[in-house]
Amino acid sequence: MVKNIALLGSTGSIGVQTLEVIDEHKDDFIVKIISGHKNVQRLLEQALKYKPEYVIVTHEKSYEILKKELSTFPIKVILGEKEIAKVYQEVNLDLVIGAISGAAGIPSVLAALELGIDVALANKETIVVAGNIVKRIQKKTGAKIIPVDSEHSAIFQCLTGHEKAVSGLLITASGGPFRNLSPDELHKVTPEMALNHPTWSMGNKITIDSATLMNKGLEIIEAHFLFNVAYENINAIIHPQSIVHSMVLYGDGSVLAHLGLPDMRVPIQYALTYPERKNNSFPKLDLLKIKELEFLKPDTEKFPCLNLAYRAGKIGYTMPAVLNAANEIAVELFMQKDIGFMDIPKLVEEVMQKHEIVKEFDFKDLLEVDKWARIECKKIKDRM
Amino acid sequence: MVKNIALLGSTGSIGVQTLEVIDEHKDDFIVKIISGHKNVQRLLEQALKYKPEYVIVTHEKSYEILKKELSTFPIKVILGEKEIAKVYQEVNLDLVIGAISGAAGIPSVLAALELGIDVALANKETIVVAGNIVKRIQKKTGAKIIPVDSEHSAIFQCLTGHEKAVSGLLITASGGPFRNLSPDELHKVTPEMALNHPTWSMGNKITIDSATLMNKGLEIIEAHFLFNVAYENINAIIHPQSIVHSMVLYGDGSVLAHLGLPDMRVPIQYALTYPERKNNSFPKLDLLKIKELEFLKPDTEKFPCLNLAYRAGKIGYTMPAVLNAANEIAVELFMQKDIGFMDIPKLVEEVMQKHEIVKEFDFKDLLEVDKWARIECKKIKDRM
Repeated sequence: MVKNIALLGSTGSIGVQTLEVIDEHKDDFIVKIISGHKNVQRLLEQALKYKPEYVIVTHEKSYEILKKELSTFPIKVILGEKEIAKVYQEVNLDLVIGAISGAAGIPSVLAALELGIDVALANKETIVVAGNIVKRIQKKTGAKIIPVDSEHSAIFQCLTGHEKAVSGLLITASGGPFRNLSPDELHKVTPEMALNHPTWSMGNKITIDSATLMNKGLEIIEAHFLFNVAYENINAIIHPQSIVHSMVLYGDGSVLAHLGLPDMRVPIQYALTYPERKNNSFPKLDLLKIKELEFLKPDTEKFPCLNLAYRAGKIGYTMPAVLNAANEIAVELFMQKDIGFMDIPKLVEEVMQKHEIVKEFDFKDLLEVDKWARIECKKIKDRM
Repeated sequence: MVKNIALLGSTGSIGVQTLEVIDEHKDDFIVKIISGHKNVQRLLEQALKYKPEYVIVTHEKSYEILKKELSTFPIKVILGEKEIAKVYQEVNLDLVIGAISGAAGIPSVLAALELGIDVALANKETIVVAGNIVKRIQKKTGAKIIPVDSEHSAIFQCLTGHEKAVSGLLITASGGPFRNLSPDELHKVTPEMALNHPTWSMGNKITIDSATLMNKGLEIIEAHFLFNVAYENINAIIHPQSIVHSMVLYGDGSVLAHLGLPDMRVPIQYALTYPERKNNSFPKLDLLKIKELEFLKPDTEKFPCLNLAYRAGKIGYTMPAVLNAANEIAVELFMQKDIGFMDIPKLVEEVMQKHEIVKEFDFKDLLEVDKWARIECKKIKDRM
């Protein structure tokens, strides 16, 4: 079956790797929609190569350029996501790939789910921020979410119809580049150092989140929602080789694990071809070359973000959205060298402490909370 | 659903552990038949505890004792397996557990499959010796085989409906107790040394087979038949910790692995409760305690049995039966200190070289071949 797909965030790291997967399986997918923000050159190249029906651009200047450059092609260029539901319906989609990074990636995913379109989800914020709302929509429309994150794809693949017997999830973490630094050294970490991830090739934001272990925290919240497992039964484990991508623990003593090279194209492909599994020409794991797999306890003293995420997840309601928004700002401030590496958890914790959770909310309320947390985070920074 | 079961070989290592599993799930199973050979004391205890309808004994003296001891109970004691099909039918079985060790365990398993009764199979000889016949019967009656061997159970659990995309199997081996011995030291190995397995608690024969790697060879032949994977795509890998019990490689770069403590009760339970998975109170894996998993290439110079098994498997027809029979005798001779440890592969290879394969055969022919190989093996030993 040929699948009509929309690739939201086509110029980012996941977007580009998704297109590599599609190049491997040219006859199985038709790219109907691509979308991007400021990387106009790459978006133009992609438009010319994949000839989508729509290019959605969220940056006005980029829109103007693309509009002009693509004027002689049968490709519609649209500014902003406001009309995205209409566009989805027009091109008769089978699958939306949600690969926009950060909270900005949420609305386009919700719109797809509302229409009952399945989503291959790389944007973890959709679940972390709006998990409750996502569940409500899925219940109504029956749209499926197929995880793209390597950890959640691993768990998804290891859940072999035995959900009732699941006793826990073990989410692996490379530990980031600073696993072995002392607390003193951690204070002196620069953005350049943090962007040098030991095993995975990913975007900037997620690479910093990897270094603080916030990424693992967000993944724990995501796993809680995606797989209905209590926080008490989800653990992170440091695994520096990044070969085991996560595990499912069963009540009979069995543990199922997904292994492979740290290559995002593998989980991306699984999400695209699901429920089928297809061969590809990507490099394959050779355990005889890896030789050793290590597993260690994460140091939550040195990396407080992990426990902040557990706390936010267990409190629930609007708190995960606050965690996420404060963290996005804190990471931005760190990237601009306005704060130090160890200020990231400090800022996030302070914003969380100031937040009074709201128990009944819709997506608009979440956007308000998100906005508040961002402003609050900057305020706290200014007072530092 | 309560399952009526027959436990063939109830006094052996797998038999005893199967009863431990049943003790964990008292309401799920009714033991209708147990069977044993010479261990009359244990068989009597089991009969008194589980009150089966039938006790089958294959040793005449044991039969006489049991007949007397159980005369006041509503338990029928039967000598030999000739009437086993009738007994199966009488007690309305759901599952036969084939846990008799060696070629002696084959007929009772074939009888169950012939009647369309599913088999939880611990006896690898059934597949190694009579794989072609098993397949023929299964095609006719639709009876399922659920593997009990930890390696095959692992593979079975990792095959999540993606059989078409399987690119290979990776069967783990502890490497046995002699992995690090020199060729000279290997010649001096005694039965006592060989019976001291580093990780698994198993019967004597299989423990010796573990030390020679013949066990891994037999498992490769078994996996070939059970999962329809070509020999070229089945590899053994040394994994001294015995935590990863085997892996399935997929053509998309995914590898699914089954992990757990080396506790045979876990795969036994899975075979008993399949297609369900149930909780139990057995000790659970804690990777933080294990810390490291190693993977190494097996040394086929020092352990030639592995390649002998590949050779027998690839030749096919009657050759795996010859491999198995010659190996059973060679192990017996080694246990009696009639030959050295490195004579085991030597004897097996010589018997294989003398065998002219038969391409059309039934089970009776296989028994003839089996008998010939045993006699031939002893002859070759006498000439040494």
